[in-house]
Amino acid sequence: MIFLSEAESAALITEEIAYDAVRRAFIAAAAEQSALFPAVPCHGSQPHNRFTIKSAAAEDVAGVKIGSYWPDNTDVPKHNSVILLLDQTVGRIGAVIEAGTVNAYRTAAADAVAADALARPEAATLTIFGSGHQSLYECLALARVREIDTIHVVARSHGPAFVQELADHGLSGRLTSAEEAVKAADIIVTATTARAPLFAATWVRPGTHVASMGSDAKGKQELPPALLTTADLFCDWPAQSTAIGEFQHATADRQVTAIGEVLTGKARGRQSPHAITVFDSSGIALQDLYVGMALLDLASD
Amino acid sequence: MIFLSEAESAALITEEIAYDAVRRAFIAAAAEQSALFPAVPCHGSQPHNRFTIKSAAAEDVAGVKIGSYWPDNTDVPKHNSVILLLDQTVGRIGAVIEAGTVNAYRTAAADAVAADALARPEAATLTIFGSGHQSLYECLALARVREIDTIHVVARSHGPAFVQELADHGLSGRLTSAEEAVKAADIIVTATTARAPLFAATWVRPGTHVASMGSDAKGKQELPPALLTTADLFCDWPAQSTAIGEFQHATADRQVTAIGEVLTGKARGRQSPHAITVFDSSGIALQDLYVGMALLDLASD
Repeated sequence: MIFLSEAESAALITEEIAYDAVRRAFIAAAAEQSALFPAVPCHGSQPHNRFTIKSAAAEDVAGVKIGSYWPDNTDVPKHNSVILLLDQTVGRIGAVIEAGTVNAYRTAAADAVAADALARPEAATLTIFGSGHQSLYECLALARVREIDTIHVVARSHGPAFVQELADHGLSGRLTSAEEAVKAADIIVTATTARAPLFAATWVRPGTHVASMGSDAKGKQELPPALLTTADLFCDWPAQSTAIGEFQHATADRQVTAIGEVLTGKARGRQSPHAITVFDSSGIALQDLYVGMALLDLASD
Repeated sequence: MIFLSEAESAALITEEIAYDAVRRAFIAAAAEQSALFPAVPCHGSQPHNRFTIKSAAAEDVAGVKIGSYWPDNTDVPKHNSVILLLDQTVGRIGAVIEAGTVNAYRTAAADAVAADALARPEAATLTIFGSGHQSLYECLALARVREIDTIHVVARSHGPAFVQELADHGLSGRLTSAEEAVKAADIIVTATTARAPLFAATWVRPGTHVASMGSDAKGKQELPPALLTTADLFCDWPAQSTAIGEFQHATADRQVTAIGEVLTGKARGRQSPHAITVFDSSGIALQDLYVGMALLDLASD
């Protein structure tokens, strides 16, 4: 069994590796022979400590991702992640990869892949809701796929520190009200734990691309429902997104398109410069498995 | 992260360790604060290669077990197993234990713990259906809890080799027809992949204890349904046993008692020397997690 520690995987991962792997994962997810198995929400001995098991198989990979959230952690990350890849020649677990930092890259990469496919080419103003751990990764990943000149930050706390963090990475951020930020945005990313809409649908300009990253459980909600009635809806995995993702709040009559169908040309993405596109990322194990394979390739070089 | 390889875990495991750990697991499974999360049936890139993810949490442990079955394996075992224990102080995977051989011990231990609680004290004649990989472990585990003087072996193939294997381990086995074997038995263990009853209910003597080990998926069946209408029914986890275990074939009105309730004295086990008791083992992750903890303790000694 090959083992990559948290330090090893964190040293190997880059935005480019994550982008390429997640893109392959989304394409694989849309393939007929792929299977995404049901996610299992679990908890530790103390029920407020939570972990989720996701698993999948595609033409060239099969395995499991375990993501945990220990809210009381203070000196160590609250989120942790492990990727398990099956050695498919014999059915044993062939690789175990600690992937806490990797997970932040792979989650941001999902929004970057989708934005690259769906946002207008000239999109330059990014609005980010949330200044938590994930938000910086989101901004860096999106800045790789569009020439972002301004980032509006809507933060309940740590706003100034987050803007400084962006500056440290060469990105120009400013703290803005939700209304001003949404009205100015070409791309909106929500990376929060919200359970109610973060802004009004009427504030969103035609042509905007919206990515909801935070909604990953029943009851979570980041976007105004009115937006979901008019925008074109895309996601990583429709069955999961409509069950526990942001599209649990979309009406059943709305078409929800897997982004992999867009990437392969089977489905249309952005229909016009004026369309509003929404991408919901609820997270699928194939992302982790393809990233894990890429890391193994690098580690064996 | 602590890693125990297949060779390391196989060198540490004994029937006694498995028995004690599985007994604790069954007691924990009956405790209010324990949680057994839904099992997920998965497959590899080739759908006939299968793996199952089971997970659980109890007062002092939480984690995941992945068991795989690669039917085309010839030079290496078709069954493999990995136990993942969460480090509950921080939520990371604290230990990964390859547990192919361990799994055979823990599965046999389940039947031994149940037989120890439910079989008559003087039970001495064991009948085993099946001469596959698991059958030897079953016989050895049961011989630890009752003074078994005769083992009737009902085998479709490899019968003589299996009887020789028993002899190599100091056990006296003989090949018998299903009818003769059942009629002579104090304890019957079915360790097969059957999809239809292996014997007639009328052959089973009063006072017999029956353990169904093989039924772990919809459509599998080892016992005659008539037996399930009159015998007292016990299992590791009623919700799973009635869904995918042998008791999928029991009528909904039958009481199915968790063996943990018997072990803690909350429920009655054998009601009389004449009662027929049936134990169905569909396998729960707590077995693996407690065995895993015991192995870690040993490994750190």
